[in-house]
Amino acid sequence: MSSQKSPIYIENEWSISENRFDPVQIVTTGSNFMTGNGYLGYRGTFPEWEAEEYVGCIVSDTYDNADGKWKELCNVPNGLYTALQLGAAQVHPTRGPGEVSDYRLSLNYRYGRTSGGYTWNPQEPGLQKGTELRVSFERFASYSSLHLLAQRVRIAAITGGLLTLSTGVDGRVWSLNGEHFRECSAFNEGDIIGLNCATSEKGTEVVVAQGVQIYGVTPRTKDSAEPLSPPQEKRRNFRQLQFELQAGDELIIEQMMTVFSGNDTADPYSAAVELAREATENGYEREAGQSARVWDTLWNRYFIHIESTDTTQALLNYNLYHNIIATPAHTDHLPIGARGLSCQAYQGAAFWDQEIFNLPMYLYTYPEVARNILIYRYKTLDGARRKAERLGYEGAYYAWISGDTGDELCPDYFFKDVLTGRKIRNHFNDWQIHISPDISYAIQHYYQATGDWGFIKDYGAEMLFEIANFLVSHAYFKKDKNRYEIIRVLGPDEYHENADNNVFTNFQAKWAIGTALDVYTRLSSTDPQILQKIAQRCRIDGQRIELWKEMYEHIYIPEPVAESKLIEQFDGYFGLEDIMPNTLANRLKDPNEYWGWPTGIAYETQVIKQADVVQLFCLHPESYSVETMQRNYRYYEPRTHHRSSLSPAVHSIVASRIGFYDQAYSYFQESLGIDLFSTNPPASGGTFIGGIHTAACGIAWQMVVFGFSGIVFTDQGILCKPHLPQEWSSVQFTLHYRGQSCLVSLTADSVKLDAAPSNQKALPFQIFEQEYRVQPGDSITHSL
Amino acid sequence: MSSQKSPIYIENEWSISENRFDPVQIVTTGSNFMTGNGYLGYRGTFPEWEAEEYVGCIVSDTYDNADGKWKELCNVPNGLYTALQLGAAQVHPTRGPGEVSDYRLSLNYRYGRTSGGYTWNPQEPGLQKGTELRVSFERFASYSSLHLLAQRVRIAAITGGLLTLSTGVDGRVWSLNGEHFRECSAFNEGDIIGLNCATSEKGTEVVVAQGVQIYGVTPRTKDSAEPLSPPQEKRRNFRQLQFELQAGDELIIEQMMTVFSGNDTADPYSAAVELAREATENGYEREAGQSARVWDTLWNRYFIHIESTDTTQALLNYNLYHNIIATPAHTDHLPIGARGLSCQAYQGAAFWDQEIFNLPMYLYTYPEVARNILIYRYKTLDGARRKAERLGYEGAYYAWISGDTGDELCPDYFFKDVLTGRKIRNHFNDWQIHISPDISYAIQHYYQATGDWGFIKDYGAEMLFEIANFLVSHAYFKKDKNRYEIIRVLGPDEYHENADNNVFTNFQAKWAIGTALDVYTRLSSTDPQILQKIAQRCRIDGQRIELWKEMYEHIYIPEPVAESKLIEQFDGYFGLEDIMPNTLANRLKDPNEYWGWPTGIAYETQVIKQADVVQLFCLHPESYSVETMQRNYRYYEPRTHHRSSLSPAVHSIVASRIGFYDQAYSYFQESLGIDLFSTNPPASGGTFIGGIHTAACGIAWQMVVFGFSGIVFTDQGILCKPHLPQEWSSVQFTLHYRGQSCLVSLTADSVKLDAAPSNQKALPFQIFEQEYRVQPGDSITHSL
Repeated sequence: MSSQKSPIYIENEWSISENRFDPVQIVTTGSNFMTGNGYLGYRGTFPEWEAEEYVGCIVSDTYDNADGKWKELCNVPNGLYTALQLGAAQVHPTRGPGEVSDYRLSLNYRYGRTSGGYTWNPQEPGLQKGTELRVSFERFASYSSLHLLAQRVRIAAITGGLLTLSTGVDGRVWSLNGEHFRECSAFNEGDIIGLNCATSEKGTEVVVAQGVQIYGVTPRTKDSAEPLSPPQEKRRNFRQLQFELQAGDELIIEQMMTVFSGNDTADPYSAAVELAREATENGYEREAGQSARVWDTLWNRYFIHIESTDTTQALLNYNLYHNIIATPAHTDHLPIGARGLSCQAYQGAAFWDQEIFNLPMYLYTYPEVARNILIYRYKTLDGARRKAERLGYEGAYYAWISGDTGDELCPDYFFKDVLTGRKIRNHFNDWQIHISPDISYAIQHYYQATGDWGFIKDYGAEMLFEIANFLVSHAYFKKDKNRYEIIRVLGPDEYHENADNNVFTNFQAKWAIGTALDVYTRLSSTDPQILQKIAQRCRIDGQRIELWKEMYEHIYIPEPVAESKLIEQFDGYFGLEDIMPNTLANRLKDPNEYWGWPTGIAYETQVIKQADVVQLFCLHPESYSVETMQRNYRYYEPRTHHRSSLSPAVHSIVASRIGFYDQAYSYFQESLGIDLFSTNPPASGGTFIGGIHTAACGIAWQMVVFGFSGIVFTDQGILCKPHLPQEWSSVQFTLHYRGQSCLVSLTADSVKLDAAPSNQKALPFQIFEQEYRVQPGDSITHSL
Repeated sequence: MSSQKSPIYIENEWSISENRFDPVQIVTTGSNFMTGNGYLGYRGTFPEWEAEEYVGCIVSDTYDNADGKWKELCNVPNGLYTALQLGAAQVHPTRGPGEVSDYRLSLNYRYGRTSGGYTWNPQEPGLQKGTELRVSFERFASYSSLHLLAQRVRIAAITGGLLTLSTGVDGRVWSLNGEHFRECSAFNEGDIIGLNCATSEKGTEVVVAQGVQIYGVTPRTKDSAEPLSPPQEKRRNFRQLQFELQAGDELIIEQMMTVFSGNDTADPYSAAVELAREATENGYEREAGQSARVWDTLWNRYFIHIESTDTTQALLNYNLYHNIIATPAHTDHLPIGARGLSCQAYQGAAFWDQEIFNLPMYLYTYPEVARNILIYRYKTLDGARRKAERLGYEGAYYAWISGDTGDELCPDYFFKDVLTGRKIRNHFNDWQIHISPDISYAIQHYYQATGDWGFIKDYGAEMLFEIANFLVSHAYFKKDKNRYEIIRVLGPDEYHENADNNVFTNFQAKWAIGTALDVYTRLSSTDPQILQKIAQRCRIDGQRIELWKEMYEHIYIPEPVAESKLIEQFDGYFGLEDIMPNTLANRLKDPNEYWGWPTGIAYETQVIKQADVVQLFCLHPESYSVETMQRNYRYYEPRTHHRSSLSPAVHSIVASRIGFYDQAYSYFQESLGIDLFSTNPPASGGTFIGGIHTAACGIAWQMVVFGFSGIVFTDQGILCKPHLPQEWSSVQFTLHYRGQSCLVSLTADSVKLDAAPSNQKALPFQIFEQEYRVQPGDSITHSL
């Protein structure tokens, strides 16, 4: 489970560390060891690091288009910057003249704390040999105060010396696409210092403030908060302090960084200064404790405990952690970024990943979070309407890459042809239509899991209707075949653009229209006045409903072929060259070539980027026989290149359900390690794609619950058909379903269900063929 | 009108010459100076030349696939090969040790005679300085005996010497795609020698024979037909003769080459030997005279006489000549190749060029030839059915590149990306559907021009019906817009593949379906039993006819936009980057890059390869107002790259009709010079595309008759709205229309019509608004 190339190791089920600095992996490491809270993400970097070490604090809702092409979140000024100097020598973990030993970087993901340290020995002739410092830090993004980052730096003097400390707000930040701050002005507000910046596109204010407390050693000036005269540098506002360290001294610096933008509050300056002052007064320990209490409640919600002979529990926790900190659970108007808040890659924006990969974990544990995510889609419905209209369709065509407004953020050109240097016109933005029905799928499952009809009335129905309108306006009717077809799309497999009748897309479209029809019918009888208003907004009349029905009944869904039971991924797929990914790779002229449409090596072959037909089985296991799924899995799996982090987990879930247990576990392990053990370069086809793969993190929960534990949520209740990996002796997790909670405990030969005493009614629970109704506070145990 | 780069000059209205050998232009020159007769084409090369000088005799109906990818016509062994040696020195026009002067290559295209000559001076020390030979030749492909090529070589000795002559059949031929003869065996049949070859794919026999007569000087051996012992070389069968030349001697060698393939006759060997023997006996002069008499009748048919201040007449004749020799007028089962029989490029096969560019000249002068061409399409209807079925359609989808069977010859990969070395997957073969309705257009016009209902019953109806079936099965119905659309095509502008609702394609499709419906209706009343049989073969019933009608009524034809009157070439075209071709060219990284889809520089811009909307106006001038055509011409013309030889002529015709006379004449001149003054390299994107542009040659006739002379053929008769270029004082041509013949004579201020005395009825002829009915043998003169 660990890569030889990586210096990373697992300390325990809540902690990872690395004990060697690997400059090649610096982008990845910064993401892996990050802290965050759904409002902001702060990369796992040393306080001494700067832009060149990819220090980053990515703040939600700060979308800015600085280069006229790519809109992305801002990397805000770093309010935790710390520079150390002993005598004339820079003290630094990875640069400078000193000798560094005992290097360590850690992440405790139970509480989202990044820590690190190193021992420093001077190498310069001017300094006495043997002068040593032990520098360490700990940092967390607060879950009790989302605009706060707290950091504590400790400097233990093994021998003495004159230490100069510079700390403050470093506005010289790393940015992927353009300079996002057209100006940054420094401010000193009593003890609090900071930078007040304005974004380049709309001039949105972004304020970063810093407060500091010093313990252990008194600085040479009287007032510890009063800075010396630090060098005046552009986009930097530092304070400087000096300490005469004696051997055995321990200097402690607590730094409180706060961030507010004009999108958070009308007066971000006051908010940042006040919070920084308050937090500085509270101190690190108190803030840490308050945040930890929130984490305890979160982990209670997302609890999964696995007894295993391997590192599963640690890796699972790690993945859930990254899903949690990527999710703006605190609000209903922001998306889960495909790279979360780990960096600016993928523009801090949501893809279909959000509904299909990130959301189910929340839906069945903390449905209020799922609700917020779906309300975000409602609040961006007008953006989806604008996209549809711009492309000549009706209804709602959701953005492939969706930020704050729901307008399409996906640029026309995503990758470059490394052989020619020319941009590649990928049609992710205008042809990958399954994003819209995928949202319908999530809405339908949200309602199934919560029975929250109020959500449907206030939000869900309108989205469902507009998505159905879009699908009907996109589809073509083939008169000679008496069927609707969906032409020129990409399914999840993005190597094959310009495909017709992609089975995943067509199936999702039918499902989405069916759901819209169901909701329409129910609203007609329960809430006709509400329906009337929604129908007016969506321009729906009886004729339109007939059109939905007709498309629902006549849409072409490629069926399993008679004998082979194979389902053709799209029209003509089986006629493509049949070659396996490893053999195909020999045709590369450059290892960084993009494999897909229109000129990549895979486009004219059956090699696919990621699960597509298998993805369909993942979402709709009830619609295909096990034999059909087995045969298709066997066919498609070896032809899958898995060049999407979304792919292995989907294979794991489906493999579990169809009895391919070895593959299920092997893909499970692969998926869990995507971020931690990745040695992939952070760029592809000239585009930066580094950062945390939040979709893979989110679906980790599904692999355990939907995959190995065999949980299926139906209209009748919860169905459980587990098959635990032989490495596991037990697995336990909590579920919330239709207002009831329970604890599921599985071993190789038993299933136990504890219904929460607070439940309002009996919980229907079926284990294989056996049905149970578990009363509040009751337990049942079923032997396998 | 002449290019400085070219050594070619116009001698008179029937003859061109070049007086300098230009090795860079050797491929082009060989095509320009070729002779041919619709059965075979023989390139304009010296008798001494070999494969390296692109000697070629391309024979129709010899399609062979030698490399597993490209099927093409064979370049058969050269039965006119002649090698000369004086003493030990090679006598050669362009190679060898001698000094060559008075070099000349000529083509008389009145009678299809290639001739040439040079004066040779030795440079070798062994030979006496001052020994000179004047070598000349003349050659023609016989129009009275299509399997015959005759050549006469003259050697005038200015001073004397021992001349060794080798002549025979050289099977070491140049071939574009693979070796087409798996074997070639030499034979000597009395005086006749030759090679008997078998094609690589099907083993079809191809026999080339040679007979020789010597005049002027007696060879050293007794029997002039008895060879010495020429060197035995593989794939060569030569005879060798020696002559003691004295100053003032003139040696004449007459060579008769014959070709027959197993597709021409059951016993090609006997046929070739017998014809060679007979022609050798007849002698060069007699054969030349017989062929010339056929040419006289042809030119009588295709007569156009222009009095002008420039070289128009010569260039026009030249173009008509190449259209004539490219056309297999003698048979009804062969196509007109896009490069005729000038070389193997474009696989010796027909494109849409055949119906739209080559055919109209025949239709209105020699309709029997047009009939043969259209019967060829009938005989390949099953190939079109196979193509449709293979691609999932019904009916007849004609091959984009059509050879003997009508199966698609167009390879998936036509060009290469010169930047990456990778093949480009052009979709000429599966997306360029307008080929099928273009054939319907030609059938409709054939019937209009001839009233040949028998053709419709025997051939035309079935093609029309199957094309309509194809179109209906290809189209999609958009329910929300209540219209049929045609999705994912290329129009004539091949830079933009994957286009929807290309106006040219949609218009042609509507026209084709309308024609099918008309013919169906008429057959229902006149020939119900015949209709029943055809309907059965085409699986047509009442329901199908309703589908045709519905598509005819509801197909979407992009209309001129309200104020601008601009017609969008395809959905979204006006949204593409608006840039002019010359500016766009700056983006090339390599001058040989292909500009079109999917990654060429033009694909995402409004730069188009060739006339598309303008092409629509060319075919359907009655459907648009002059103002609409003017506005669109003004818009599209500067955005047109004219990288198809089809483009300038179409612009000339449309410009004539809408009063843009300067442009009309300038494009006319450009089009006439495409072959003669072209300095384009013979390859593009790694693909050989040299050879005669027969479509441009064919449409030369249309530029004069449809363009400047303003002739339109309607159901009511002939309409004439001329506007002669100021360079012309008069133009005269013959027309055949509905069985009647006439001579049209135009000057700037008059139109004269002479109706043939043999006509059976009055000829309706309208000049602008004035209608005439001209009785057989009568003339009318109309002042303008």
